[in-house]
Amino acid sequence: MTTTERPLDQAYEFDRGIAVRRRAGGEYAADLDPGWRIGGGLNGGYVLAVVGNAVRHRLAGEGHPDPLAVGVHFLSPARPGPATVRTRLLRAGGRHATVAATLSQPDDGEADRVSVLATYGDLARADGEVRTTHPEPQLPPLRDCLPGSAAPTGLKQAAPLLDRLGTRLDPACLGWARGEPSNRGVMQGWFRFADDRPPDPISLLLVVDALPPTTMDLGMPGWAPTLELTVHVRAAPAPGWLKVRHLTRNLAGGYFEEDCDVWDAAGRLVAQSRQLALQPR
Amino acid sequence: MTTTERPLDQAYEFDRGIAVRRRAGGEYAADLDPGWRIGGGLNGGYVLAVVGNAVRHRLAGEGHPDPLAVGVHFLSPARPGPATVRTRLLRAGGRHATVAATLSQPDDGEADRVSVLATYGDLARADGEVRTTHPEPQLPPLRDCLPGSAAPTGLKQAAPLLDRLGTRLDPACLGWARGEPSNRGVMQGWFRFADDRPPDPISLLLVVDALPPTTMDLGMPGWAPTLELTVHVRAAPAPGWLKVRHLTRNLAGGYFEEDCDVWDAAGRLVAQSRQLALQPR
Repeated sequence: MTTTERPLDQAYEFDRGIAVRRRAGGEYAADLDPGWRIGGGLNGGYVLAVVGNAVRHRLAGEGHPDPLAVGVHFLSPARPGPATVRTRLLRAGGRHATVAATLSQPDDGEADRVSVLATYGDLARADGEVRTTHPEPQLPPLRDCLPGSAAPTGLKQAAPLLDRLGTRLDPACLGWARGEPSNRGVMQGWFRFADDRPPDPISLLLVVDALPPTTMDLGMPGWAPTLELTVHVRAAPAPGWLKVRHLTRNLAGGYFEEDCDVWDAAGRLVAQSRQLALQPR
Repeated sequence: MTTTERPLDQAYEFDRGIAVRRRAGGEYAADLDPGWRIGGGLNGGYVLAVVGNAVRHRLAGEGHPDPLAVGVHFLSPARPGPATVRTRLLRAGGRHATVAATLSQPDDGEADRVSVLATYGDLARADGEVRTTHPEPQLPPLRDCLPGSAAPTGLKQAAPLLDRLGTRLDPACLGWARGEPSNRGVMQGWFRFADDRPPDPISLLLVVDALPPTTMDLGMPGWAPTLELTVHVRAAPAPGWLKVRHLTRNLAGGYFEEDCDVWDAAGRLVAQSRQLALQPR
């Protein structure tokens, strides 16, 4: 039994938060959890993980347990409460399956929150050679990094997800908090779930969107709404702390890209993502 | 009148190749052009540009003429001949519109070739500050780079698109042709269309997929099928030659990512893309 075939363990906050119940015709019911709130909306990576979990259920028993390439376009802000995920199988058979999915919520009728295209496969079968030239991020030791749970009370009330993430941020990326951003466009740190839920491929859909935006390190505080996010999961992560590094290299015309790399405790590059977001006003 | 509002000029091969005819209900007819063939299929960037053009037509008059973030999952190999693009508007109003689209072809019934999610906007309105830290690629002068049209006759018969691209490849990336790949995972060069069609946002959907795969520079000749490709168009390109750089930093378990950056003649980073592809066998 591989990690990803293990029955969902609802002992963990993340698994309770992404749980889905099957309805007819490729439709799944979810209940978006207010604990993953950040400001007025829900964390985009959390919403994507709910959809990713519905896609995993849709493909159960087909030999494609793992997200390989998942792209999401954000249409309107998701809110805590009931949601429906509609899935449509676009391709099956062979090594990969592709599913289109939308998540919608009741909202003056019904409103789509996100639209997703997802190609799944089996990372346990991805056992070829590994040639990685991308350098692993250099992070200060855990004891020198700052937990999100240590944020001021006001911020924690606006962002209850800080208590669910065991993130420890590199202080070199937090100069903005005292008005001295590094202007490198970097945000990096260590990641684990606060309740020690082990990392797996589905959880990486959240991990790549769990740190503060790089625009803070560019001296632009405030919310940076994501238009589009694509995640490539490249390997099932080993247990333990993850290293997460976000980098922006082109802020232009009111938009910026944010690349994220996630490394596991075994030193393997397990996920790469890129998003296009709006520069904070 | 901005560049992207100009009526389609069918004087150019690319514009004839991506032309669509409107049917009812958000449906468009296209005729995929054998001139963009590479091996047994059609170039993925060309197929994406056909879909991108249909989306542009779907949004005509709505104030969202330009692709900003476009993700495509490849479902089956597209072939020259008739095709249907079905578009569905997911979000309109405000600064952005999002459309879902599929391209299908008659094939023992009908088969989907690609599925696309596309967020469009107006690059003419994206006039904020530009802060780019990503370095512009250093390319040898044009006269020292190699045109695809100089490829051996056998290769050109298998890849007629080589005659339509004015690509000039950096010889440092072509060591594989004599059994001496650089193993850097880089493929870069200059790009223009052979018939001097000026670059615009839609054409960048092709440009990011027009060079040989980076796996050749890693000593792995052969076809590298793309699973997923996401393109961010960051600015309308200035007239003139484009610089295109592809880089792979993680080949692992039979998959590799390929990042592409496109710079225009004015030294601006105009597009960023990433694809996940299968390592050649």
